[in-house]
Amino acid sequence: MSGADRSSLASWTVNPLTSTSVGIGPRVGIVGGGQLARMSAAPAEALGIDFSVLATNEDESAAQVIRRVILGHHDDPEALERLAAANDVITFDHEHVPPALLESLQSRGVMVRPGPSALRHAQDKWHMRASLSELGAPVPAWARVERPEQIAEMGEEHGWPLVLKVSRGGYDGRGVWVVDDLPSAIEVMEDNPLAPEAVWLVEQFLDFDMEISAQVARSPHGQAVAYPVVQTVQVDGMCAEVVAPAPDLDETLAVEASELALRIAGELDCVGMLAVEMFVVDGRIVVNELAMRPHNSGHWSIEGAITSQFENHLRAVLDWPLGDPRLVAPHAVMVNVVGPPGPVRPLHEAFRHIMARDPGLHVHLYGKAIRPRRKLGHVTVVGDDLDALLERAHHGADYLMGVIDE
Amino acid sequence: MSGADRSSLASWTVNPLTSTSVGIGPRVGIVGGGQLARMSAAPAEALGIDFSVLATNEDESAAQVIRRVILGHHDDPEALERLAAANDVITFDHEHVPPALLESLQSRGVMVRPGPSALRHAQDKWHMRASLSELGAPVPAWARVERPEQIAEMGEEHGWPLVLKVSRGGYDGRGVWVVDDLPSAIEVMEDNPLAPEAVWLVEQFLDFDMEISAQVARSPHGQAVAYPVVQTVQVDGMCAEVVAPAPDLDETLAVEASELALRIAGELDCVGMLAVEMFVVDGRIVVNELAMRPHNSGHWSIEGAITSQFENHLRAVLDWPLGDPRLVAPHAVMVNVVGPPGPVRPLHEAFRHIMARDPGLHVHLYGKAIRPRRKLGHVTVVGDDLDALLERAHHGADYLMGVIDE
Repeated sequence: MSGADRSSLASWTVNPLTSTSVGIGPRVGIVGGGQLARMSAAPAEALGIDFSVLATNEDESAAQVIRRVILGHHDDPEALERLAAANDVITFDHEHVPPALLESLQSRGVMVRPGPSALRHAQDKWHMRASLSELGAPVPAWARVERPEQIAEMGEEHGWPLVLKVSRGGYDGRGVWVVDDLPSAIEVMEDNPLAPEAVWLVEQFLDFDMEISAQVARSPHGQAVAYPVVQTVQVDGMCAEVVAPAPDLDETLAVEASELALRIAGELDCVGMLAVEMFVVDGRIVVNELAMRPHNSGHWSIEGAITSQFENHLRAVLDWPLGDPRLVAPHAVMVNVVGPPGPVRPLHEAFRHIMARDPGLHVHLYGKAIRPRRKLGHVTVVGDDLDALLERAHHGADYLMGVIDE
Repeated sequence: MSGADRSSLASWTVNPLTSTSVGIGPRVGIVGGGQLARMSAAPAEALGIDFSVLATNEDESAAQVIRRVILGHHDDPEALERLAAANDVITFDHEHVPPALLESLQSRGVMVRPGPSALRHAQDKWHMRASLSELGAPVPAWARVERPEQIAEMGEEHGWPLVLKVSRGGYDGRGVWVVDDLPSAIEVMEDNPLAPEAVWLVEQFLDFDMEISAQVARSPHGQAVAYPVVQTVQVDGMCAEVVAPAPDLDETLAVEASELALRIAGELDCVGMLAVEMFVVDGRIVVNELAMRPHNSGHWSIEGAITSQFENHLRAVLDWPLGDPRLVAPHAVMVNVVGPPGPVRPLHEAFRHIMARDPGLHVHLYGKAIRPRRKLGHVTVVGDDLDALLERAHHGADYLMGVIDE
């Protein structure tokens, strides 16, 4: 049927129970009230998704902007039950929900996306390293540390320094140490008691040429799309700058990185966004970390891609067809706004200056109190001239952070 | 100061009263819970604005997605007081707040933007016609109808049909009638009792070549930016399709339309978004209507402009520098999704089809129950090939509305 022929429409029934709400879409609940949940609110609003958040308090970043807030902790079974009961699908702002709780929800028919067996790879670095090694994906030399001698052996084989990691609970550089010798390694392990179920990992230290991130979205029925591979700059283990597409990356490696991310998403049965953070070392790619949610390396996509990572995450967890991940311009640059070590002016006082200087600057603040090393927001610029974009984005972020005052 | 020199930063004080909330921005309250308020939520979230809405019930379009909802009616002084008390600035989703209430708020120091003296021109067509005539802006021949003979005189001078309008309370084609003769005009006037303070206007009927809309944003300190002039197609007095920039508009006329909109914004002391809807008649532009808020003719700007009309409205009412209104691509097309006359499938059932067919389609639903002639949402596409964009946008909207089923 096409055009004005409406004869077959009469057969569509209007459910009297839903006839007043046929414009309201499915219900998605997100565990965790951080900035990733907050930035998911805009596409949820656009797509008519009934969106709610499980937040620990009303002031959390996402709880400030989402209408339906369920208060509770992500490791409280009762709070998760309430979120699940109020929604058709639940998804995640972070990786900290205990796997056993998710398995319990899933076993009772709750739609958990990504599912706990996939999510485990983002929750537990031991699990991730083991699965990636099994898949033949390129990873650094690594071992689970059960005895200190294993660290010494790794040092003999691959040289010092080495990287020590806790398998669970680390983020933004926390839970990762670079150690120069065995005594330092032992000191780190003694000073940092392991959380329950966590183990110590030791990895080869890679003197990488650059860091990149390959993001894909994947839906339950197996559709997947790949975002342009981006180049990231980390400071203190925290994402500081992202350039899309990665300007210094060989095209062959970019394709390889995308294909690897798509393969990992498929093999691990990911649903939603997957970020594969990688190092480029001597012309090879090596997987560093996985994240199964929207990721800092994809914030540029809000303005820089046809469909943002936040929209594609929602589409994927609802098993809707995925949106176009391509860039809307030749380049996009995102720079994080991070809490500086010292005193700072209120962030909004910077707006007059940065907005007047650069009417094309996109500012995102997360509604957070300022604390040192805390991600408070980011800025994005999109356009043709990469050098100019880098200058503009860093100026905007530096001015917000108080690193410069003109 | 530049670079890493932070010596002068020590002089910035951190107010202990706000030190835990320096990431939280000013408070903006919007009167009216419709889709314009709803679509303002995304830029408010991005800019860290503490945004609230005065809505008549929890199910209204904007109340579904905005955290802080104040329940009350826009003509209830007490409800307006509550909104004003909770915010630094108040602004509007519609033009229906009684001017006397706004004057009263303003006289007590409430920041009302746009102010009541500007807003009157969007609330009252008599006032608008009189002011525009005084400014020498091109308007159709018009008169306030105090006696039926004036209608007859207008018919003799300009020919029939004529356009009858109520000065207040009309929208989306309501409150406007095209009449072929005096008896029809009298019948319309008898059948439609005037609301308080409203008057009848009669206007020359213009057989226009096209309809256009010129949107500008203007801030209290007088900065103004002009969006590309767009071409609009109205169906039943309601916006149906918008193409940016106006493809059939002579460049000279486009500049003239932009300049006129900027002049009107300045002369009337508008703050926020102003839409000037115009006819093009025999190579001349003629002003039809004014709206002082984000407008249906600017929905394309969410994805199609560097800075959307919703963000620039917020920036303007906060007196922040305005964002770049230029297009991100050669063309943008927006088509409204309007409630069809007959039964319809739930809107979200259409998503699988339209998203799979067109991964670049941007869908916006307003969370409304489906009713005939009700604006339920819109779709936007952005790109290089205007014919393809028109086909894609109409396909998406038609499929959502159930006009086609493939």
